[in-house]
Amino acid sequence: MTYCVGVKLDDGLIFASDSRTHAGVDNYASFCKMTVFEQPGDRVLVLLSSGDLAATQAVIGVLRQRAAAGASHIWSVTSMFDVANLVADAMRDIERRDGPFLESGGLKFNASFILGGQIAGEDMRLFRIYAEGNFIEAGTETTFLQTGEAKYGKPILDLAVTHGASLEDATKCVLVSYDSTMLSNLSVGMPIDLLCYARNALQVSMKRRFDAGDAYFEVLKSHWIAGTRRVFHELPALVW
Amino acid sequence: MTYCVGVKLDDGLIFASDSRTHAGVDNYASFCKMTVFEQPGDRVLVLLSSGDLAATQAVIGVLRQRAAAGASHIWSVTSMFDVANLVADAMRDIERRDGPFLESGGLKFNASFILGGQIAGEDMRLFRIYAEGNFIEAGTETTFLQTGEAKYGKPILDLAVTHGASLEDATKCVLVSYDSTMLSNLSVGMPIDLLCYARNALQVSMKRRFDAGDAYFEVLKSHWIAGTRRVFHELPALVW
Repeated sequence: MTYCVGVKLDDGLIFASDSRTHAGVDNYASFCKMTVFEQPGDRVLVLLSSGDLAATQAVIGVLRQRAAAGASHIWSVTSMFDVANLVADAMRDIERRDGPFLESGGLKFNASFILGGQIAGEDMRLFRIYAEGNFIEAGTETTFLQTGEAKYGKPILDLAVTHGASLEDATKCVLVSYDSTMLSNLSVGMPIDLLCYARNALQVSMKRRFDAGDAYFEVLKSHWIAGTRRVFHELPALVW
Repeated sequence: MTYCVGVKLDDGLIFASDSRTHAGVDNYASFCKMTVFEQPGDRVLVLLSSGDLAATQAVIGVLRQRAAAGASHIWSVTSMFDVANLVADAMRDIERRDGPFLESGGLKFNASFILGGQIAGEDMRLFRIYAEGNFIEAGTETTFLQTGEAKYGKPILDLAVTHGASLEDATKCVLVSYDSTMLSNLSVGMPIDLLCYARNALQVSMKRRFDAGDAYFEVLKSHWIAGTRRVFHELPALVW
């Protein structure tokens, strides 16, 4: 499993991904699921990968090679919508290539992405690209998109990730949602990769990895538990 | 879907169930999923039902009829373990009767229960009974058991439902976990039935139904959201 979140606030974007991959509980490993394409002053593109690791790595590989080879590519197109289409093209090409072989082993092509960022001349945008290459874009009512093990983390995000929330508060909320998810699903694990993008910055200045035992993450967890217990205690008592 | 929770604290038990049943989003209804068998001073037994309504109602019906008919039944046995076995017997009898007919329609017998309570001479106990009639009992490490749409509500319960928590605080936590679940899954819906049982009381004095728009529930929701946003705001800031 995987847990990835993309958040779109008035003030910026937040991206987070866990890094556990596994083929059964007796065979797990750690791979970064966050890929950043950055050209300061021009564009910041962030991709969060879910699904089969061979598939997501192949898609990222194709995107990088095509970008290096010229023609229309992720460094040259002028909208995030075009970038989403280029990601979808790469996914469909990999599926065309690998799909029949996967099927012979009883498997299916399985890769999906959260894509977000900003290109100069356009506002920030956030997409979820499905395994078939079709995609949805977050609108004004949607402040976050999740992939993978989304249920355990969603109630926490619902509490504080409103479009007007500050990047700082929403970031804490995203981290707490990782803690909730990891508590209940062993297939989501640290390190967590986190990136915050301030609207119109057109460069990455806030990127951080949280390894197991990270001091800030531990403090956040204990303060969150203590704080919410206090809230429960202070909620009005039920009259029977 | 359904969402049922049974909680076992040092001080007592908490039971809650939603009441939405449905066969598709275009066909839903409201049925109470909480059944209480009470003989003040002797025993309190609470059953929370999940699964196919015809199956769970049939099981409850058989339990009531057998109790009225005498022999060994839920009013006469001397342990909660025996009660769990009687529920399992009823489930297996219904499956034996209905199973082949369900199979001919491509369906499976589908009923499961959370059972908890106390019989004089024994401490409180809490069980989860699976569709096959086998069951598990909550131990000292397990403070709650859930059935149905369990994921959205679990992170909230994890925060404050520790075995030493007060019945009052844990009850608020259970109600908030219903709010979180209903926000994300339309197939879980009000009214919510809630019962708190104080250890060794051997009678029911705290039972309450929350209909849509219940004034206390609305206050609880808004205080919870405001409280947790304050907690997020007060959590230490991330240094990049």
